Amino acid sequence: MTTDPKPETDIYTRRESEARSYCRSFPVEFAAARNATLTDRDGREYIDFLAGCSSLNYGHNDPDMKAALVNYIASDGITHALDMHTGPKAAFLETFERLILKPRGMDHKVMMTGPTGTNAVEAAMKLARKVTGRETVIAFSNGFHGMTMGALAATGNAGKRGGGGMSLHGVTRMPFEGAIEGVDSLAYITAMLENPSGGIDAPAAFLIEPVQGEGGLNAASAEFLKGIAALAKKHGALLIADDIQSGIGRTGPFFSFEGMGIEPDLIPLAKSLSGYGLPFAALLIRPDLDIWKPAEHNGTFRGNTHAFVTARVALEKFWADDAFQKQTEAKAAVLTERLKRIADLIPGARVKGRGMMQGVDVGSGALAADICARCFAEGLVIETSGAHDEVVKVLAPLTIPQAQFEAGLDIIEAAAQDAVSETTRIAAE
Amino acid sequence: MTTDPKPETDIYTRRESEARSYCRSFPVEFAAARNATLTDRDGREYIDFLAGCSSLNYGHNDPDMKAALVNYIASDGITHALDMHTGPKAAFLETFERLILKPRGMDHKVMMTGPTGTNAVEAAMKLARKVTGRETVIAFSNGFHGMTMGALAATGNAGKRGGGGMSLHGVTRMPFEGAIEGVDSLAYITAMLENPSGGIDAPAAFLIEPVQGEGGLNAASAEFLKGIAALAKKHGALLIADDIQSGIGRTGPFFSFEGMGIEPDLIPLAKSLSGYGLPFAALLIRPDLDIWKPAEHNGTFRGNTHAFVTARVALEKFWADDAFQKQTEAKAAVLTERLKRIADLIPGARVKGRGMMQGVDVGSGALAADICARCFAEGLVIETSGAHDEVVKVLAPLTIPQAQFEAGLDIIEAAAQDAVSETTRIAAE
Amino acid sequence: MTTDPKPETDIYTRRESEARSYCRSFPVEFAAARNATLTDRDGREYIDFLAGCSSLNYGHNDPDMKAALVNYIASDGITHALDMHTGPKAAFLETFERLILKPRGMDHKVMMTGPTGTNAVEAAMKLARKVTGRETVIAFSNGFHGMTMGALAATGNAGKRGGGGMSLHGVTRMPFEGAIEGVDSLAYITAMLENPSGGIDAPAAFLIEPVQGEGGLNAASAEFLKGIAALAKKHGALLIADDIQSGIGRTGPFFSFEGMGIEPDLIPLAKSLSGYGLPFAALLIRPDLDIWKPAEHNGTFRGNTHAFVTARVALEKFWADDAFQKQTEAKAAVLTERLKRIADLIPGARVKGRGMMQGVDVGSGALAADICARCFAEGLVIETSGAHDEVVKVLAPLTIPQAQFEAGLDIIEAAAQDAVSETTRIAAE
Amino acid sequence: MTTDPKPETDIYTRRESEARSYCRSFPVEFAAARNATLTDRDGREYIDFLAGCSSLNYGHNDPDMKAALVNYIASDGITHALDMHTGPKAAFLETFERLILKPRGMDHKVMMTGPTGTNAVEAAMKLARKVTGRETVIAFSNGFHGMTMGALAATGNAGKRGGGGMSLHGVTRMPFEGAIEGVDSLAYITAMLENPSGGIDAPAAFLIEPVQGEGGLNAASAEFLKGIAALAKKHGALLIADDIQSGIGRTGPFFSFEGMGIEPDLIPLAKSLSGYGLPFAALLIRPDLDIWKPAEHNGTFRGNTHAFVTARVALEKFWADDAFQKQTEAKAAVLTERLKRIADLIPGARVKGRGMMQGVDVGSGALAADICARCFAEGLVIETSGAHDEVVKVLAPLTIPQAQFEAGLDIIEAAAQDAVSETTRIAAE
Repeated sequence: MTTDPKPETDIYTRRESEARSYCRSFPVEFAAARNATLTDRDGREYIDFLAGCSSLNYGHNDPDMKAALVNYIASDGITHALDMHTGPKAAFLETFERLILKPRGMDHKVMMTGPTGTNAVEAAMKLARKVTGRETVIAFSNGFHGMTMGALAATGNAGKRGGGGMSLHGVTRMPFEGAIEGVDSLAYITAMLENPSGGIDAPAAFLIEPVQGEGGLNAASAEFLKGIAALAKKHGALLIADDIQSGIGRTGPFFSFEGMGIEPDLIPLAKSLSGYGLPFAALLIRPDLDIWKPAEHNGTFRGNTHAFVTARVALEKFWADDAFQKQTEAKAAVLTERLKRIADLIPGARVKGRGMMQGVDVGSGALAADICARCFAEGLVIETSGAHDEVVKVLAPLTIPQAQFEAGLDIIEAAAQDAVSETTRIAAE
Repeated sequence: MTTDPKPETDIYTRRESEARSYCRSFPVEFAAARNATLTDRDGREYIDFLAGCSSLNYGHNDPDMKAALVNYIASDGITHALDMHTGPKAAFLETFERLILKPRGMDHKVMMTGPTGTNAVEAAMKLARKVTGRETVIAFSNGFHGMTMGALAATGNAGKRGGGGMSLHGVTRMPFEGAIEGVDSLAYITAMLENPSGGIDAPAAFLIEPVQGEGGLNAASAEFLKGIAALAKKHGALLIADDIQSGIGRTGPFFSFEGMGIEPDLIPLAKSLSGYGLPFAALLIRPDLDIWKPAEHNGTFRGNTHAFVTARVALEKFWADDAFQKQTEAKAAVLTERLKRIADLIPGARVKGRGMMQGVDVGSGALAADICARCFAEGLVIETSGAHDEVVKVLAPLTIPQAQFEAGLDIIEAAAQDAVSETTRIAAE
Repeated sequence: MTTDPKPETDIYTRRESEARSYCRSFPVEFAAARNATLTDRDGREYIDFLAGCSSLNYGHNDPDMKAALVNYIASDGITHALDMHTGPKAAFLETFERLILKPRGMDHKVMMTGPTGTNAVEAAMKLARKVTGRETVIAFSNGFHGMTMGALAATGNAGKRGGGGMSLHGVTRMPFEGAIEGVDSLAYITAMLENPSGGIDAPAAFLIEPVQGEGGLNAASAEFLKGIAALAKKHGALLIADDIQSGIGRTGPFFSFEGMGIEPDLIPLAKSLSGYGLPFAALLIRPDLDIWKPAEHNGTFRGNTHAFVTARVALEKFWADDAFQKQTEAKAAVLTERLKRIADLIPGARVKGRGMMQGVDVGSGALAADICARCFAEGLVIETSGAHDEVVKVLAPLTIPQAQFEAGLDIIEAAAQDAVSETTRIAAE
Repeated sequence: MTTDPKPETDIYTRRESEARSYCRSFPVEFAAARNATLTDRDGREYIDFLAGCSSLNYGHNDPDMKAALVNYIASDGITHALDMHTGPKAAFLETFERLILKPRGMDHKVMMTGPTGTNAVEAAMKLARKVTGRETVIAFSNGFHGMTMGALAATGNAGKRGGGGMSLHGVTRMPFEGAIEGVDSLAYITAMLENPSGGIDAPAAFLIEPVQGEGGLNAASAEFLKGIAALAKKHGALLIADDIQSGIGRTGPFFSFEGMGIEPDLIPLAKSLSGYGLPFAALLIRPDLDIWKPAEHNGTFRGNTHAFVTARVALEKFWADDAFQKQTEAKAAVLTERLKRIADLIPGARVKGRGMMQGVDVGSGALAADICARCFAEGLVIETSGAHDEVVKVLAPLTIPQAQFEAGLDIIEAAAQDAVSETTRIAAE
């Protein structure tokens, strides 16, 4: 991360908390955006390979969603309705049921939680504990689930955890697939759980991201996910698939776990759920587990009406048939190929992730940061992830035009080439 | 609460989680809204005395905010920007600094947390623990701070706490002012804290709502707040004033604690902060306490850009001078008078609260629910609060036209009259 | 507390942990003891008004217990038996049943816990949580229950709590009777518990010392204890009477709560239970609550066989009729009278406690320490208690000969007189 | 475990808590004991291969300790002295320093904790947290450390943990050496700790038994212990070697970790420390870590004076030279050989443990229980251990005469032979 280059007296430095972060990597002021193109105050354009950390799977300001939203606002459609019934909510629910749940044989209830991913995760953890009467949620190394105390306990990152200022309870940590070289994580978890003196309490749930985003684009295999699902079933625990970053088409299908042989009990969704970048989150709940009492988990901004409007348009536009999924898969294939080429430039580097959620582990945070900074100088917004920020992560809008996508990839390739050359040059001196 | 009258097959019953709540009290579908008027699908109009639980202090869909928002959206202004710099954020910060902070002699930093009140509270609790190296946050009987695990620990309501499904840590409960008849809460708290064998750990913070909303419109006196502030200072604890429901003009001034002689260290804001009902929250931080590291508490929807647009308009429109505060105070005086008249109808009833956050404690949840149901039948949306839902709570938009305000109050008065008559009639039979 | 006057090189300073404490107040080496008389290495005799903090209610080395113990050891009676059946255990249980339980209409089961008070308290807290399925144990200001993490959570003393090195969970603190001037503790506790938004979780148990020893000789009234018992019953919580320091005759009857109208569910006993100062503890359990599974709470030294031998002798010698209780009550009356006289010497001082567990609150820890130091110089071993160590505490053996008892009291009176005179003299200079 | 055959009306059934356990396996009443021989009420003799779970490493009622103890008691030597100075304490400390610490190059301070292993472990965990300011103690699968809440959190056994009745905090579980087939535990632990997103908080300490007793006689290798020690040092954590069951000569040397290249910071000792089966525990503390304040961790029965008397005799008798260690090693060699022969009788069985702390994992709890029951019928007291009680565990007194030792081993061998034959016979039917 670069430090903020603005003078001490700019409004951000003067008035915004030190907690601010992305603005430090991209120290310009953004003014407008359309699909994969960001425009700053000075009219300079950037290709967006960050996409709101997967909150903009359909790109910025999709024209159909925009039209629907402007129309809704202009007509004095109700903006804030607490969790009362509104037309947009009904339309969203009906569309979600028709286009997402039914075709996938799912009968989940939709819980409108506070409009943040962490809130949906908290609701899932609370419900799993209520349903099972157990406290322990098993979460995974490199998992990222949010910043509020319940979700933070499940988040692996030491810096984030340290922000809690106190001990975090109720979570037992297990290794994600492939986390420890030479260790079969599934076998390890199974053995520890099945040893009555293993010291691991019977879990309320397993909380897993099918593809870990912040943790470094670690993609679980179907075998691993099925193993965890079977273990959960055997031990009376729920399976929570946190599809906040990996869902809503990011890996191809609507849910990242489709076709992998698992049926999660609880599915927190957020980020791209609204389609338009608006705050919106929901928890999908297997209907027999929906034992909430009215208002038992409530919140002022549950069911953001503006988000209902755009989310419905997004579902109709992109999920009425499988064309969008196929396009994503085609782009993902390009991505894999191009990233392999980039990885080949860097000794020890390797491609990680799945679908349009891939990147290159370049082996060090310093090199990854150098590459990203070079990209930004060339007009590409891109970030790192991983425990050591060692992965250059591509999270382009799924809707990005092919040419622009390739242009962005060209920038990364050139940046990687330059970074490696510079490193070699310096080493040679 | 009435139960949902819709057939089993309606989309809400079929697909939305049982956690939904307000829709059960107001089983209609809302379509549009303007200032204090809600309109349902069938064109029926309702006066809104709920105002999104104080999220709509400026009423629904204020035309100036609407115009600015539509204009921003239409121009492809960036919607989702993570926490990068944007024009609307700069404009909001500058306006907030100029119109809110500076005139009040405050130098707080603004932390954009996830756009929910609970997230701002969690950030405050985390920061207080980080700053002090202590775990215990002292919260109060009848306090309400949110549903995520950190904030939930500070929330008093047994039902909500039970939703957590596990023990909640890090909070010690103390009585709010007047909570226990015959007990001087401040003296009690002081004595327990100052007894080295009292068993109360040194606190990281006191977390207090100057006026408790959900807890039953309990308004702390300046003396109590000053006493808590002094105790915090003496014991090296921070003072967190949760002004989520009571702030943004609800009691008259922008902050509910203005003029009460306290200077809170941390101030979570949400609800009416955006002005337009959009999800938005922030934590004000005394600048020397802003020890966050970049991204130490992060989140996808920090700094909702649409909300920056409307919030700035709201500040300019309502807080450039003291006219709005004076109008609110005038309305509040009317409210007090009318509520006293209503209280006089009900044996043992009494008026509670402060400013435009007042209500009548009618002595029982059943009677309060009866009155609210009668109101709704007459076209008034109004809810209860309090530990036993025993307070009929008026949270009208501050911008409500005088005539409509009085019409709403007439409905309550008639409903109270009818409810009492019916009770008397039944008792007499 | 005086600091250890021994040279750096003595074995205690060189090799024993800094945690050692009483030896700092009484920096001599004790060699032998008989009833209320301690003899040091140099043959100097001391009157013992500390009695092992009430572990020596029958004095040091009672000749009948000694004879039985020596005989048992000499005959190769089994010393360590884990929790297997032994003759001494059977004899102890039968005697305890016959002389203690039956005459008092009690049918409690006896659980041999690890031979320390803290272990008996831990077992009680665990069992209460198992039985009720709840976590929260309500403990009281100035309560003292032990140093292991479960019991420590229930202990009020800030210094001891700080020794835990981490947050202590599962306990909610309430004020003991009279803890806060002007606050009716029972009314306060009742109101907080009965407020559904009070934020106090439903308790598994109330854990109370009928007379607080370390906390400053605070004696609960029958009214308070009955109130707590009723509250426990109403809320489905157990009543745990920690009679470790106050039991075994210390206040007159075997249990300190006899005649006060309560029937505790769980009663931890330790200290004087063995009669001879040997490590021994037990938990009395209302039979229907004895849901332990075999070895669910175990430990190597449960059921110290030597202690069974002496404990049985103690029961037969002192509890076969009410003579001992009457003697204690007679001594207690003398104690009250003499302490009142002493209190009269000191402005603001007052007598506290009950039975042979009384002392004088002299208003400051410094003065109390001064008095105790003067006593030690005159051959009286006596300590302080209370949150500020402000109570000069008399815990003489119940068996102390009358003349020696009065001689000890004379020493205190003279010491108090001298301390006050000196204070006055210094003040006058 | 067999169920208690006594009639409902016997005193144990009638009056002792259901928590009692060993008496269920050995339903006789023991009367006397000498070295490795137990005698029941009816005069029947048993060979003791349980030895108070390693509390009787020097056998029952050693005549020299007995003589010293009887002499001390007869002379009215002080029995209960709180933690004041006494001759026996000084003599114990001097002897411990001279015969144990100095020859091993150790300079540890001795903390007299409550006289139970769990109390020594709690003191160690508390001190580690105080010293490091961290909460997490890393404990191991199959670890057993005690029943009070702090130590219980570190204990792996699910049944014991369940007895706590609430969640247990502050411990992260890691696999003991060899716990998971195919997993290099040390590599696993290292990788999880060194991953900044691994989700394992920086530990205050590693708490490890060099040989796990209750957990199934799992003996850590020097390589593993050195690895853990190095990891602790690297991460700023303390190393706590719980030598309660494995220490005091059980594996040959005084400490079980001697010669393994580690220098533990904290060493809880109990069980055989008194030599005579008397309750006694201590925590050895590296001197620079002895930051306890006086009485910060206290307790009534710290420093059992009778135990000081016998412990000193034990040290002088057995540890003045290396003869005893050599004898133990010679016996251990016999034990290994004999157990291998027994293991050979049982398909899949294997010998486990180290020194005089060895047993045979027979593959199932049922078979192990069957063998132990057959042994008891033949006059041998022996128990199982392990997560499934699958290990027949030999914990004979180290002082057992060779002939009696072999007689006991003969009984096991015959019992194993019979059990296997019976199993085979039944299977064949």
